Amino acid sequence: MKTKRTELTGKSRSGSEWIYGLNPVLEAIRAGRNIEGIFLSSGKKDSPRILEIEKEAGKRNISLRRADISFFHTHFPKGHQGIAAKVFPKAYLNIEELLEIPSRKGEPPLFIILDCIEDPRNFGAILRVADAAGVHGIVIQSHRSVTLGAEVSKASAGAVEYIPVSIVANIKHAIQEMKERSITIVGAEAGVEKRVWDLDLRIPLAIVIGSEGKGLRKTVKENCDILVSLPMKGKINSLNVSVAVGILTFEILRQRAHLSQF
Amino acid sequence: MKTKRTELTGKSRSGSEWIYGLNPVLEAIRAGRNIEGIFLSSGKKDSPRILEIEKEAGKRNISLRRADISFFHTHFPKGHQGIAAKVFPKAYLNIEELLEIPSRKGEPPLFIILDCIEDPRNFGAILRVADAAGVHGIVIQSHRSVTLGAEVSKASAGAVEYIPVSIVANIKHAIQEMKERSITIVGAEAGVEKRVWDLDLRIPLAIVIGSEGKGLRKTVKENCDILVSLPMKGKINSLNVSVAVGILTFEILRQRAHLSQF
Repeated sequence: MKTKRTELTGKSRSGSEWIYGLNPVLEAIRAGRNIEGIFLSSGKKDSPRILEIEKEAGKRNISLRRADISFFHTHFPKGHQGIAAKVFPKAYLNIEELLEIPSRKGEPPLFIILDCIEDPRNFGAILRVADAAGVHGIVIQSHRSVTLGAEVSKASAGAVEYIPVSIVANIKHAIQEMKERSITIVGAEAGVEKRVWDLDLRIPLAIVIGSEGKGLRKTVKENCDILVSLPMKGKINSLNVSVAVGILTFEILRQRAHLSQF
Repeated sequence: MKTKRTELTGKSRSGSEWIYGLNPVLEAIRAGRNIEGIFLSSGKKDSPRILEIEKEAGKRNISLRRADISFFHTHFPKGHQGIAAKVFPKAYLNIEELLEIPSRKGEPPLFIILDCIEDPRNFGAILRVADAAGVHGIVIQSHRSVTLGAEVSKASAGAVEYIPVSIVANIKHAIQEMKERSITIVGAEAGVEKRVWDLDLRIPLAIVIGSEGKGLRKTVKENCDILVSLPMKGKINSLNVSVAVGILTFEILRQRAHLSQF
């Protein structure tokens, strides 16, 4: 049975949009996002995170209003936790800005390129993993892909505030730009012989991740310098895309920590 | 807004229960689960997976009936994909049976112990990862934990059919039994100094995973032989529990594949 929600998750005429849930709102405040106002359920009890939200909103002169819980049930999906904020959209970076980040941090580049990820929860979960793994930025394609929005923010547990995202008309051009800067393009592809463990991952890298059902598109695959797989031992042998990104990026972290005892 | 579903996801008087979604139903058939009947939406188009379900159901004399899509909307959560099956519950193994599996496979033991995981989607996602990583079995606690059911099956993409699960009154007793068989108990705990990469993971192992919000309980922590963390580099620095299990178990896989070049 479909719920009849009149979702407030599109963009308004002023260009602002809604995010919902405790972590997304709290991290938007912490990260200094431009916020028009916060709505809190009138029945919501004070918790450490609510108190921090109230305090930070006060400091930054952000209006904080109470609303009946029905407002949240009507306008937001499950998981709203009785809190929402009207925010200015997160800005995308252009690819040149994205490519400057690693040298500013003095680290070998580590980017993720998403080839047509369609599920906002998967994109959000990838942003959350990318934050933990210290990924410098994510490239997405404007067509046939999910873009940033309330559901992505929610699934990212607020990590969307911290991971730079660049949106391009075609990821092949981003791949080309990266290659010109000596970044090795590694495509993740189930079943190929070369395992992620067989590679030296300390070099400048961009990992290309295919869509949930279909994997990498043929033309994208042809643009990769190398294809690698995660060896699997089971019967189903499919991993959620954010789990695969977690395994890949933490193997990169491990190698870059110069650990070699095993 | 809550949907008013009369969910068919509890146990019936005959002891059978429902599962829903393409992968869960297909894997239940493939794995030889005892199935009372399959219901398919009358509007459902033939796809390779539907054809396989029809063929396998025919072979095994499983009744396959068509039902209006409203039947599925009324009785199952989003994600039912117009297919459901009435099945006999998956049997839990006792801990002794679970502990015999690795030697039958000629592999060093690799178990996962879940300390009060409450979200069925997380439990399902962990089962999916466990299948891919070749985990021998999972131990859960009967109280304060989610147990096997339709939502877990759905989130596991059917992997629930292949991963042996043992349910115990208290995981401390399972830990004790494992220790007596020289299995090292590794607790995953954010922030501890010892990193997962610093350990030799080729020895017999059980990984203990804490609940979503609270981590490992104090008394469980005290029963672990060692605590390890995943080093993180971001601002949010929290991983979904199934992503953490993926990173941990694939690091074990890597080490057990005797790879040592980096």
